[in-house]
Amino acid sequence: MQQLRPSNCMLGSSSIIRRQHFLIRVLGCSSNNQTHHHQYRMNSMICGSGLEADALGILRSVTPALDPSRYKGQAGKIAVIGGCREYTGAPYFSAISALKIGADLSHVFCTKDAAPVIKSYSPELIVHPILEESYSVRDEDKRSISDNVLAEVAKWMERFDCLVVGPGLGRDPFLLDCVSNIMKHARQSNVPIVIDGDGLFLVTNCLDLVSGYPLAILTPNVNEYKRLVQKVLNHEVNDEDAPQQLLSLAKRIGGVTILRKGKSDLISDGETVRSVSMYGSPRRCGGQGDILSGSVAVFVSWARQYISSGKGESAMNPMILGCIAGSALMRKAASLAFENKRRSTLTGDIIECLGRSLEEICPVSC
Amino acid sequence: MQQLRPSNCMLGSSSIIRRQHFLIRVLGCSSNNQTHHHQYRMNSMICGSGLEADALGILRSVTPALDPSRYKGQAGKIAVIGGCREYTGAPYFSAISALKIGADLSHVFCTKDAAPVIKSYSPELIVHPILEESYSVRDEDKRSISDNVLAEVAKWMERFDCLVVGPGLGRDPFLLDCVSNIMKHARQSNVPIVIDGDGLFLVTNCLDLVSGYPLAILTPNVNEYKRLVQKVLNHEVNDEDAPQQLLSLAKRIGGVTILRKGKSDLISDGETVRSVSMYGSPRRCGGQGDILSGSVAVFVSWARQYISSGKGESAMNPMILGCIAGSALMRKAASLAFENKRRSTLTGDIIECLGRSLEEICPVSC
Repeated sequence: MQQLRPSNCMLGSSSIIRRQHFLIRVLGCSSNNQTHHHQYRMNSMICGSGLEADALGILRSVTPALDPSRYKGQAGKIAVIGGCREYTGAPYFSAISALKIGADLSHVFCTKDAAPVIKSYSPELIVHPILEESYSVRDEDKRSISDNVLAEVAKWMERFDCLVVGPGLGRDPFLLDCVSNIMKHARQSNVPIVIDGDGLFLVTNCLDLVSGYPLAILTPNVNEYKRLVQKVLNHEVNDEDAPQQLLSLAKRIGGVTILRKGKSDLISDGETVRSVSMYGSPRRCGGQGDILSGSVAVFVSWARQYISSGKGESAMNPMILGCIAGSALMRKAASLAFENKRRSTLTGDIIECLGRSLEEICPVSC
Repeated sequence: MQQLRPSNCMLGSSSIIRRQHFLIRVLGCSSNNQTHHHQYRMNSMICGSGLEADALGILRSVTPALDPSRYKGQAGKIAVIGGCREYTGAPYFSAISALKIGADLSHVFCTKDAAPVIKSYSPELIVHPILEESYSVRDEDKRSISDNVLAEVAKWMERFDCLVVGPGLGRDPFLLDCVSNIMKHARQSNVPIVIDGDGLFLVTNCLDLVSGYPLAILTPNVNEYKRLVQKVLNHEVNDEDAPQQLLSLAKRIGGVTILRKGKSDLISDGETVRSVSMYGSPRRCGGQGDILSGSVAVFVSWARQYISSGKGESAMNPMILGCIAGSALMRKAASLAFENKRRSTLTGDIIECLGRSLEEICPVSC
């Protein structure tokens, strides 16, 4: 049987004077480590409605006040690693979403072919054409190019509050090698990494990249989750007991945070499981996962600031808070866009609703 | 005399509880195969108002319900083969129309020159820069490049619900050779193919590509239709008896479906003839045919799901249903755009009306 450690239940208190209340109401006796008690709590947590996070309360708590005395960068500097000859939309969606939610700077590190196209989508982004795919690289040059790629990203690394790895990355082996190096460097620098899309393909085949790194967040969709479960748990996906399986998976990868996307989003760090079911839209156009990765990146940055400033309870995992807030905002924006555009809703329409959604949940004046 | 087999008349019943009623009301005794009876039915079908399809009823029937438990891709994955150094607008119009109608993913396979431009029109599309034109290819490389092009498309083929071949394809002989190979592969994979524009130029000169393939749809305009009739029937276009000639043409090409665009759109698979005359606009700006090809691709995908799920009568040809629904939606969007923009109506204005048109005909909640 899965060993369960005590876990705090993340039911945030929604309050006008936010940042002054604890987010987490500890259910039962969290310091009691008798196994039967844990099992009782686990059962109530994963079977009942108690699984649902107070997503709006969390979102309001971690979103920083806007203060004219703050300067550029303090509200978040995000970098997206992705964009290749084939894919350019995904990194754009992720990076622009981060800005629309309130990050101050959003970078994209992509291949040389992808850069002019991504730049053309928006002058708001900073796009670095540094990655290379195998077709444009001779074998004898690979080592030096790989070193250069890492050096180019490394000189920026300390400035980033969060990395998103994967949107439109593609699966070129040489490119993925370079991205592995970037991830190792980010890890050494203690920069959180949100991993989606082809980044999950990379990580599923090389779990060491994230295993045991508490600042890693995986955001798999139904197919990506299936591959991850098969690889890590050597098992099929169990929808009957989805929260327990997700918890086991996150624990097995050494406490990374996993946001399993679906009709409800399920989130676990191997210690606790929470779900976000509010809002949402039945439209499944490609690109929505990219909004989510950008959104989670911003809220993870904010949640870490929130926790480190001593406003929240230190036992709270800011990765979980960031996932809950990011999921809630994305779902709200998707529902607003769908109300208006119905079947013709595209990812760009949802991005246009991010600002209004955030303002409705968490007005600037509050 | 043309042999006529019994054909079901596609007068769909419009109903609030759609998908539970048969679309086709069999006129007369469809199992009666006495020749005079067929001739009587054929005459009534092609001369009277009975030719007009219940396009709105069909559109409502085949459009799938939106269900939050569905995941990305289930509402349709479309690929457009087209876009070259000269033409980039046409494949964009076709592919973006598919998304705006409700497909989940829309790909474009085009030349390397065309790709950055098509990508820059919208980050919503997945654009593959894989085709080559003669000017950029040495004779000794043609074989290997042709193989690579096919391999690149082939690895995606199984995932596509429908291909659109032709928008902005151009007429470069080497490129058309590569596209012939793609069409052969699609046919082996039983993927429906909507053929328009320069795809019709290719097919008219090489009828074997589609002859006898029941999942092929040709969407000729007046000039393309004229060339097709001359080539296949060795005859001039006969506007006096247009439905009969269209029926003969479709039958002679082995039961492909033909959508003859005009003031009224006429549709036949060699078994039946239907027309769509509702809505429409007097504006004839270029690009409207591209919207239609993308629209037909989505509705054909949906109509096949609808029939294979047992909701419709199995005798119905989903190609015909898809053409009728695609034509009706396009005509409605064109009429809405024209109401607003009058002589200045452009193709992009019509695309912006696709979502509202679909919602007015078939509201999401219904």
